[in-house]
Amino acid sequence: MMTTDRKQGLVVKIGGTEGVDFQAVCEDAAAIVRSGQQLVLVHGGSAEATALGTALGTPPRFITSPSGYTSRYTDRVTLEVFMMAVNGKINTLLTETLNGLGVKAFGLSGQDGSWMVATRKTAIQSVENGKRKLIRDDFSGKIDSVNPSILFALLEMGCVPVVAPLARGAEGEALNIDADRAAAEVAAAVKAETLILLTGVPGLLAHFPDEASLIQTLKPTELPQAVEIAQGRMKKKILGAQEALDGGVGRVIIADGRIANPISNALSGAGTWIA
Amino acid sequence: MMTTDRKQGLVVKIGGTEGVDFQAVCEDAAAIVRSGQQLVLVHGGSAEATALGTALGTPPRFITSPSGYTSRYTDRVTLEVFMMAVNGKINTLLTETLNGLGVKAFGLSGQDGSWMVATRKTAIQSVENGKRKLIRDDFSGKIDSVNPSILFALLEMGCVPVVAPLARGAEGEALNIDADRAAAEVAAAVKAETLILLTGVPGLLAHFPDEASLIQTLKPTELPQAVEIAQGRMKKKILGAQEALDGGVGRVIIADGRIANPISNALSGAGTWIA
Repeated sequence: MMTTDRKQGLVVKIGGTEGVDFQAVCEDAAAIVRSGQQLVLVHGGSAEATALGTALGTPPRFITSPSGYTSRYTDRVTLEVFMMAVNGKINTLLTETLNGLGVKAFGLSGQDGSWMVATRKTAIQSVENGKRKLIRDDFSGKIDSVNPSILFALLEMGCVPVVAPLARGAEGEALNIDADRAAAEVAAAVKAETLILLTGVPGLLAHFPDEASLIQTLKPTELPQAVEIAQGRMKKKILGAQEALDGGVGRVIIADGRIANPISNALSGAGTWIA
Repeated sequence: MMTTDRKQGLVVKIGGTEGVDFQAVCEDAAAIVRSGQQLVLVHGGSAEATALGTALGTPPRFITSPSGYTSRYTDRVTLEVFMMAVNGKINTLLTETLNGLGVKAFGLSGQDGSWMVATRKTAIQSVENGKRKLIRDDFSGKIDSVNPSILFALLEMGCVPVVAPLARGAEGEALNIDADRAAAEVAAAVKAETLILLTGVPGLLAHFPDEASLIQTLKPTELPQAVEIAQGRMKKKILGAQEALDGGVGRVIIADGRIANPISNALSGAGTWIA
């Protein structure tokens, strides 16, 4: 990605609820950047948003779609909690941690400079106790376009972009976006060679939660079947992998983020490789 | 500032505790930017940090220096509250509001890309009930250097930088910095023609709080005397004005931020003009 003479561009996504060791990720990322590799970090922050919302008396509510995907119900109050927890705390702490490790990190969200534009979900079907319900006041969105110019500019300045999952909607409004899908779209936009999705399991498991049932490789043609096998948030990672490959990314690795050197381990062959 | 053929560069600072009307500032800023003017917005967020800290069970504590300046006591817990309230909420909401007004806003703090570097105050003298005390666990800092490259790059991309008052310390740590002083240093770094400090009074008052005692003009040589007259946070604005003028800024205007069109009003002659 990034510079035309460099084909090993790397986008790494770390989740907020999945037991990923942020310190280990930052240490590994710093070592990789010092070796000359360009890297973009994309993060979630659901656990922080849940904790902050709960502490402030507005605990999270979740929406389950008819096809079984789960997402955070983001009314206006929740959006502002999300801004504080994800754009304020997680993004700022990751940037600070990387700075402390000798990397020049740069925190931003997709609404800054409107480089990630999303369409607000104005009517979301939700299934509650078997009944369908329509939700109309949600501030979440589906990414329409990613303009990577600012990422290229930051990489040229020697920075590691640290991306929070907020995008800009059609009316200028901030929208909560799925961090796995955001990472996939970013990887496609910068033509990354590799997208790594770090999570709290060793990769896609054929028989969740049996970690011995790790699927080591997947072909793009096997992804529709993999979506069926995947449980919970893993479904979105498979969708993200599909989007990234469709967008020209060389390979997607879903790997364990709970261990030391999680990025290097993934690059060395651990996890589920999709290519 | 910014481009060599443009001498009307403008930096505007809005406070967090002073009754400034953020919506009115954004509307005025958007109109000014649409007219072709380049603008950088710097904000505080003390009121939000106080409200959030209080809601989370860690109400703010303030330090009064022997010379009478007041600042927030920023231990590690308070620093993270500050990140959430100021970098997370205020910065993200201002960026969202400007985006909604048709401006391409870009939120960032001084630690992003390490463009604002500060020295941590490792031993702060505090006066409590007439007694001096030394505070050693504070995460606030005094700005050492401002590298305006990222601001120039954003302005070239047609963005309005929206700057949160966090800087990077020597060890990479995030530091709370004074927003008035930050605005002054930013204005000097970009060689702004005008720095406007918007606040909850019409300007420097000879007899605070008598608003009829507004001082309309000040020469740089009168600033030491003005510091003596100034009450509370106005002292830091006068210090900021001095720093900005010393750094080559054409003029500093301390003006009323509670009214409609606060920026245009200041530029038309309202407030205290210092030049």
